[in-house]
Amino acid sequence: MPTNTTHLAAGVRSGNIRSLAKAITLIESRNPDHGAKATELLDSLLPHTGNSIRVGISGVPGVGKSTFIEALGMNLIGRGRKVAILAVDPSSQLSGGSILGDKTRMEELAREHNAFIRPSPAGDTLGGVARKTREAMLLCEAAGFDVIIVETVGVGQSEITVASMVDFFLLLQITGAGDELQGIKKGVMEIADAIIINKAEGDNRPRAELARKQYQNALHLLKPKSRNWIVPVLLCSALKHQGITETWQTVLEFVDTMREHGEFEQKRRLQASDWMWAQVMDELKSLFMTDKKVAPLIDPLQTAVSTGTTTPGAAAQRLLEAFKRH
Amino acid sequence: MPTNTTHLAAGVRSGNIRSLAKAITLIESRNPDHGAKATELLDSLLPHTGNSIRVGISGVPGVGKSTFIEALGMNLIGRGRKVAILAVDPSSQLSGGSILGDKTRMEELAREHNAFIRPSPAGDTLGGVARKTREAMLLCEAAGFDVIIVETVGVGQSEITVASMVDFFLLLQITGAGDELQGIKKGVMEIADAIIINKAEGDNRPRAELARKQYQNALHLLKPKSRNWIVPVLLCSALKHQGITETWQTVLEFVDTMREHGEFEQKRRLQASDWMWAQVMDELKSLFMTDKKVAPLIDPLQTAVSTGTTTPGAAAQRLLEAFKRH
Repeated sequence: MPTNTTHLAAGVRSGNIRSLAKAITLIESRNPDHGAKATELLDSLLPHTGNSIRVGISGVPGVGKSTFIEALGMNLIGRGRKVAILAVDPSSQLSGGSILGDKTRMEELAREHNAFIRPSPAGDTLGGVARKTREAMLLCEAAGFDVIIVETVGVGQSEITVASMVDFFLLLQITGAGDELQGIKKGVMEIADAIIINKAEGDNRPRAELARKQYQNALHLLKPKSRNWIVPVLLCSALKHQGITETWQTVLEFVDTMREHGEFEQKRRLQASDWMWAQVMDELKSLFMTDKKVAPLIDPLQTAVSTGTTTPGAAAQRLLEAFKRH
Repeated sequence: MPTNTTHLAAGVRSGNIRSLAKAITLIESRNPDHGAKATELLDSLLPHTGNSIRVGISGVPGVGKSTFIEALGMNLIGRGRKVAILAVDPSSQLSGGSILGDKTRMEELAREHNAFIRPSPAGDTLGGVARKTREAMLLCEAAGFDVIIVETVGVGQSEITVASMVDFFLLLQITGAGDELQGIKKGVMEIADAIIINKAEGDNRPRAELARKQYQNALHLLKPKSRNWIVPVLLCSALKHQGITETWQTVLEFVDTMREHGEFEQKRRLQASDWMWAQVMDELKSLFMTDKKVAPLIDPLQTAVSTGTTTPGAAAQRLLEAFKRH
């Protein structure tokens, strides 16, 4: 672990990949001594961040996410872009290691100098993973990466979390076997800025066309997130490198439109403020739950509320009074 | 304001409407002396609560909500039910009075002995309104009301809040002018246990039939909330009292199915626990925001984060340290 953050910051700024990797390791560290250094490093690099397009990509396993990200990444590198791929994987909490962002999944991209692939930080809560990923994103920007892809799996809250840290959120889907559409998790269709139907190739093409119509109809029933953007449903075949350029054009068009209407900067400011409050509330809750006077009351009160022997209101008051007394 | 809660509790238990109204006024009171009495009253009545079907109804203004609730309420009273109508209206915060639950809107129902209509508590945050409405619901149950209808408008978070306190959440829709469907607010389609298309009468019937198909297709794309329930889309004309009986049959069918699979009680237990934590977090946040050491830092740090001169993480840490110091 480096002791000199000024030196490390200079390394990151110069685009040195080893410095960037070290810097991310520093912000991911659980060692309390590293916390202050990480803050120092981030604060010093902050003026050099924000100059990327941040894209979130989600899709359940089997949807072809790695193939899609590799195809998109190679396409972008071909246009002179520098692409960083980060991951938010809440399941790494259980496995102790990340199943995402693995370099062996994106062999071609992993060999590129202008690509940086970093797996999801392991062994943490979703809040912890999110915080570290957001900070890693800033470090990548300071290192000159101008497209940041944050990938996640369609599990639990992780999609909402990723959507809250990116400019553009892309939902990758496939059609199922037969005519069945693959169901979209509740709430996810609403946060998508585009839906991409992958594997729209060969025999599967007509099914994908049908799926596109169905998604378009369904989206039509929802009030749009922005009055300046109609969520498009695009077809692609990541395997055959079809529809990748169109996908990127859509991202650029979105960014231009949002910038034009002042929504781009507004969203980033709101995200930064939300991020601050989310962290405050997370830690405040943990302070509360581990409070010496509060902790022993939690289980009995929770039980009393669940079994209906006390009201939630009365139980909440008892917990809060215990906290204030301490 | 009554001083004897035992006496008041007995009045509520006997189904006396004036006692019920007084009890609700007590729990709505902002006088700190009344807080302890309200808790005492609620705790003593708690064993007599829970024996109702709790139905949430939402729809934007113009959808015919009052007419629908009046038709449903009269139908239920005809079946020997006792119906209480409560409201969650966050806009009462601004107007200082409630636009919902107004007796003049439901003239027929207001004259019935077996109906109880209570407007939304005024001049409070959504969290405050929600707490009082939940507690009023318990009081109505103790007074023998066996159907509680909680109505809300399609504004902000109020629908999510109402869905979190009822057994069944019903979304009232109408078709728009022409073939246009009225857009559904993001996230609301996902919390509905049924969608009812009102004003499906006369010339409007074919449009309503078409809308039903479109909603069914859209719902089909979403993973269901429960594997034991497919969200139905029903047509009704509240004005002509058509489809009201079918709506209630759907509610009963839902309740039976959920009971059979143990989901009914499970949901209520989870709601009670969530409600406790929501209250704890609300008050914890307010404790934090008004803390003498924290309050003066909030605006400058919020600005620094929004303008990008400090990271959200560093700002959060500074706020938390100020709180801990105090």
